[in-house]
Amino acid sequence: MEAGVSKSVLYKCWLNYDRGAKLSKENGEILSRIVTEKESEIISSAVKELEMAAQNIIGRKPEVLKETNLPHVFLGIDKDEKSDLIDNGFSIKKDKGVVNILGKDENGILYGVFEFLRQIYTGKNIDNINIVDNPKNMLRMINHWDNMSGDIERGYAGQSIFYKDNCVIDKMDRIEDYARLAASIFINGIVINNVNVHQYETKLISCEYLPKVKKIADVFRKYGIKLYLSINFAAPMELGGLNTADPLDAEVKAWWKKTAENIYRSIPDFGGFLVKADSEFRPGPFTYGRDHADGANMLGEALEPFGGIVIWRCFVYNCLLDWRDRTKDRARAAYDNFKPLDGKFKDNVILQVKNGPMDFQIREPISPLFGAMPNTNEIAEFEITQEYTGQQKHLCYLVPLWKETLDFDTLVEGKGSTVSEIVNGNLFKRKYGGVAAVSNIGNDESWTGHPLAQANFYGYGRMIWDTTLSAEEIAKEWVELTFGVFEGEDKIVSMLMQSRDIYEEYTCPLGIGWMVNPNHHYGPSVDGYEYAAWGTYHYADFRSLGVDRTVKTGTGYTAEYAKPIADMYENVETCPEELLLFFHNMEYKYVLKSGKTIIQHIYDTHFEGVERVYDLKEKWLSLKGKIDDEIFDAVLDRLEIQIKDSKEWRDVVNSYFYRKTGIQDEHKRKIY
Amino acid sequence: MEAGVSKSVLYKCWLNYDRGAKLSKENGEILSRIVTEKESEIISSAVKELEMAAQNIIGRKPEVLKETNLPHVFLGIDKDEKSDLIDNGFSIKKDKGVVNILGKDENGILYGVFEFLRQIYTGKNIDNINIVDNPKNMLRMINHWDNMSGDIERGYAGQSIFYKDNCVIDKMDRIEDYARLAASIFINGIVINNVNVHQYETKLISCEYLPKVKKIADVFRKYGIKLYLSINFAAPMELGGLNTADPLDAEVKAWWKKTAENIYRSIPDFGGFLVKADSEFRPGPFTYGRDHADGANMLGEALEPFGGIVIWRCFVYNCLLDWRDRTKDRARAAYDNFKPLDGKFKDNVILQVKNGPMDFQIREPISPLFGAMPNTNEIAEFEITQEYTGQQKHLCYLVPLWKETLDFDTLVEGKGSTVSEIVNGNLFKRKYGGVAAVSNIGNDESWTGHPLAQANFYGYGRMIWDTTLSAEEIAKEWVELTFGVFEGEDKIVSMLMQSRDIYEEYTCPLGIGWMVNPNHHYGPSVDGYEYAAWGTYHYADFRSLGVDRTVKTGTGYTAEYAKPIADMYENVETCPEELLLFFHNMEYKYVLKSGKTIIQHIYDTHFEGVERVYDLKEKWLSLKGKIDDEIFDAVLDRLEIQIKDSKEWRDVVNSYFYRKTGIQDEHKRKIY
Repeated sequence: MEAGVSKSVLYKCWLNYDRGAKLSKENGEILSRIVTEKESEIISSAVKELEMAAQNIIGRKPEVLKETNLPHVFLGIDKDEKSDLIDNGFSIKKDKGVVNILGKDENGILYGVFEFLRQIYTGKNIDNINIVDNPKNMLRMINHWDNMSGDIERGYAGQSIFYKDNCVIDKMDRIEDYARLAASIFINGIVINNVNVHQYETKLISCEYLPKVKKIADVFRKYGIKLYLSINFAAPMELGGLNTADPLDAEVKAWWKKTAENIYRSIPDFGGFLVKADSEFRPGPFTYGRDHADGANMLGEALEPFGGIVIWRCFVYNCLLDWRDRTKDRARAAYDNFKPLDGKFKDNVILQVKNGPMDFQIREPISPLFGAMPNTNEIAEFEITQEYTGQQKHLCYLVPLWKETLDFDTLVEGKGSTVSEIVNGNLFKRKYGGVAAVSNIGNDESWTGHPLAQANFYGYGRMIWDTTLSAEEIAKEWVELTFGVFEGEDKIVSMLMQSRDIYEEYTCPLGIGWMVNPNHHYGPSVDGYEYAAWGTYHYADFRSLGVDRTVKTGTGYTAEYAKPIADMYENVETCPEELLLFFHNMEYKYVLKSGKTIIQHIYDTHFEGVERVYDLKEKWLSLKGKIDDEIFDAVLDRLEIQIKDSKEWRDVVNSYFYRKTGIQDEHKRKIY
Repeated sequence: MEAGVSKSVLYKCWLNYDRGAKLSKENGEILSRIVTEKESEIISSAVKELEMAAQNIIGRKPEVLKETNLPHVFLGIDKDEKSDLIDNGFSIKKDKGVVNILGKDENGILYGVFEFLRQIYTGKNIDNINIVDNPKNMLRMINHWDNMSGDIERGYAGQSIFYKDNCVIDKMDRIEDYARLAASIFINGIVINNVNVHQYETKLISCEYLPKVKKIADVFRKYGIKLYLSINFAAPMELGGLNTADPLDAEVKAWWKKTAENIYRSIPDFGGFLVKADSEFRPGPFTYGRDHADGANMLGEALEPFGGIVIWRCFVYNCLLDWRDRTKDRARAAYDNFKPLDGKFKDNVILQVKNGPMDFQIREPISPLFGAMPNTNEIAEFEITQEYTGQQKHLCYLVPLWKETLDFDTLVEGKGSTVSEIVNGNLFKRKYGGVAAVSNIGNDESWTGHPLAQANFYGYGRMIWDTTLSAEEIAKEWVELTFGVFEGEDKIVSMLMQSRDIYEEYTCPLGIGWMVNPNHHYGPSVDGYEYAAWGTYHYADFRSLGVDRTVKTGTGYTAEYAKPIADMYENVETCPEELLLFFHNMEYKYVLKSGKTIIQHIYDTHFEGVERVYDLKEKWLSLKGKIDDEIFDAVLDRLEIQIKDSKEWRDVVNSYFYRKTGIQDEHKRKIY
């Protein structure tokens, strides 16, 4: 670590080469020399990585040479025309005394090095290493919801690493460390500001602020990462002094073209724009009687000459709903808003679709918009930051949740129409494919607040690069890299793997979601959003709860899925029970497949969830002395909070339903 | 109006001399000359008032003379040793061609002039005017919850008139206009900063900020008003650099003495300190193992040499209660905290007790602390700003609520032990007596946001000066002064008089309180505080609701009242029904004296409340053209909001209870 603001184990994350790794004498000899055929910023980053690791493994810095007959690591571009590599792909092959790390491009070389070191540090035998690895997704994006004030919307790990007091931070050290972490999990695009673009952030695309943005882009570039910006659709008015932002207005178009030129003059590899428009009070084309396609295409035209893209969020819904009107359904919003526009978007416009139809709940069905627009680029949006999943106070490893989405078979083109195949562009042979996710990092020493939440950042990158990896495989990798290969690592893996179910147990039951305190979204408030305008209801009364989203008697939402899936959700008998209350309004006395009534299920899961948090703590305590004290203590503190707050969830939710139904817990446990 | 920032009718409030008034030729002649026997700032304010009115009534400025044999108004001190006047009292007597306005002191003279003009502008015949008027309360205080940022805690009428951007405002014009308004209703003490004293406000007592505070005190002095400051109990540490704020520490005592000296050097008539200590996370003596008496007396000693007083708030309670524990009762807090300290406070220390035991709800019983401390100065605290009573969007004339408190007979010393007689000091022959209230004014053009909320400011002052006035008499006075004497004035009076009941109807039933959105306290959220740590619960379940505060089966709170009152509250049969749920947990099916069940009462009052808001609007519409358009329009806007938001209250509360109980509305109205 050269840039490094700090060198604590918390800060180093999964790139802690001090963990040590054993190599045979022969392999150590290989690591003592690096041959590169050309010089570049990215290759120099790759070399640096090998140097840092070598220093630790073989105790010295390798020689960097143009060529040698002695054992070495070779870094170069794969020039074989018959090679299986695609963009960003790499191969690692040992050939006699040489480990050849070849990339399809420079990113590939850097990724190959990170993978090579990962093999070493997870204790793999590299004697006959032979890896060919290609990305499953070409756009591997992180979205930051950082504001220039330094605050992070939905951030739970301190302040922004990019901004402070409405300025871009001067010192680039931590930003470089971040780029390195991101590159190590093959992230190649980062949006550095919040999708809610306020006064100062609007100016990031202006000549005044571009030099500062360029500084960040320059750092990112060393690690093969393109910089993107969230833009304010009303910028032509707020910055340009125009009296309209109408996307069909000639002056507006001209303003955006000129703005794009300026940006690319500073940052020739600028990625493009991310846009939240006509949503939650953000400006957009609706003001001018235009649609999303008009708005997005206008921006697309401006970026096209430079190879830039427009990523348009589909998180658009009426946030002024009347809770009294049960015919309206926020879950329908993304589909209803965008499906009719299929085929109208330019080639360099991409729609970004949240994994679920609502908003990053602990359990939701998969958004029906995936696969509904065969003539449109669609990428998925996940949330790494734990807005509704414990805010990095609770342990909640999210890869299982995300994989549920990617593995979900929409059946839109028959079997095999998984979300994964849709968003990577394969199913409909789209030009662009990929995945984006909202960052969970901040300037906290551990980057993520909860040290174990680093696994979510790590896991996200690994998962979208290689969607065939299981959540557990990824967890194991992360544990080994973070704590070293050690007896007891399975305990941490198992803590991670159980954590999502545990969180779900003591929070909101059977897919109903919400039940949180308004605004900050932490802690239980069963009616918190029940009489609000946000469209997030449970409709619990003395007899039943849940939202009827069937075609037959409800909002008709189920019809937005392909027939077999629609039928599955439509019928109570075939609807997956973990989503039962998302799709149906059910009596508390309805008996689940477990043989329990819904009300008893609510009581039982809430009591059990808390017990299982105690189990997490027990497991963790058993690791004392076997892992770094610093991480041990930080996690233990969080587990204590989780115990306390999961009890609050348990008691509030159980009391709420007991008070409403008058139905006793069969086991006569304490409900208030 | 000389100082005046603006001269709109909204701004002028009840001192709008442009309204015009008729005087006989003889009386007009009297008004054309003013004789004063001495010059002073206060008398000069009195003269200015007469001049402004005369200009309007007789069309010219009066002559101001040392003496004359011609008709005139005489302003002077009453030197008659047998006079009935007490401090601040005045008499107004016509004697042949002279109206003699005599004060016991200069404040009395100023008040006499305001009263004289009030008589004229409310159309009274002054031919034989003969008034002797004495204050019922000696301390007539306004508390501002203004922060130096310019924000006002619980303010609904714009920003502070005292501060902006953490500085005292430079221009004194509006502050002078405010002092004049306050003096016209006989206010003689104003605390200019929030009881929650933050970083900047802590410094108001420092040499750095005192010159600015002095400027305000100089303005107040012209109108007979003393300036008070809220202080930070930890100031010796934050300002003085001491490492303790222990009230028994010699250095701390010395620091406060020196601070008092500094203050009085700048402001010789400085009133004293208002203190919120050991409450809602404010620092206080508890930190050092001391009690409230130790803390207050230490400050009292510092102010004593200068005649200053310490006002110590009794709003002290545990705000980290466990909602699961029904034995704990926030309503008990003030009594339990302070009653044991009776007799321990210095003579110049005064306890300030909120009218109810909770926190300014639309309906609460009277605080049992009134009368419980015969050896302690006790004054009452009301809230003019409508925190829980509609936030100056809803019409809610609060004088009836306040009078309920003042007229309440605690029976602590037998019949006649009213709160009024306790807080004015008479019952226990205390040195100090009076009333304080939290201001509802800000820099809004109308001062109070809702123009009709001016009646609360006006009514507060009038009520505490003369507690024998009825709420309706005060309303009529205010209407005549604000709109002029006109046909239709009864309509406005009746709107005011009904407004509190209306607001109560569509909000929270039968004394239960709360049911508001957390933090900002506006709009319905029945469970908003139900599972929180603030001690404000309704305990509604499928069968019953309400807090059991009886001795027999509940928290024992009723025992804090004198026996006959305790018995009355203890028993369901004798408990006033408007407070039934404050004292008892009752089944929804319990039948009230009206013959209705509680649940039907809830439904009916909520529907009726909204209907009555429509009636308010009807009444108001009938006044179009008869009153100033500016006020008409501003009030109409608010009434539209009140209609919309009262419907929300109605529907949320009714739906909540319907969903919980399953009991149908007898009249089958729409419940969601």
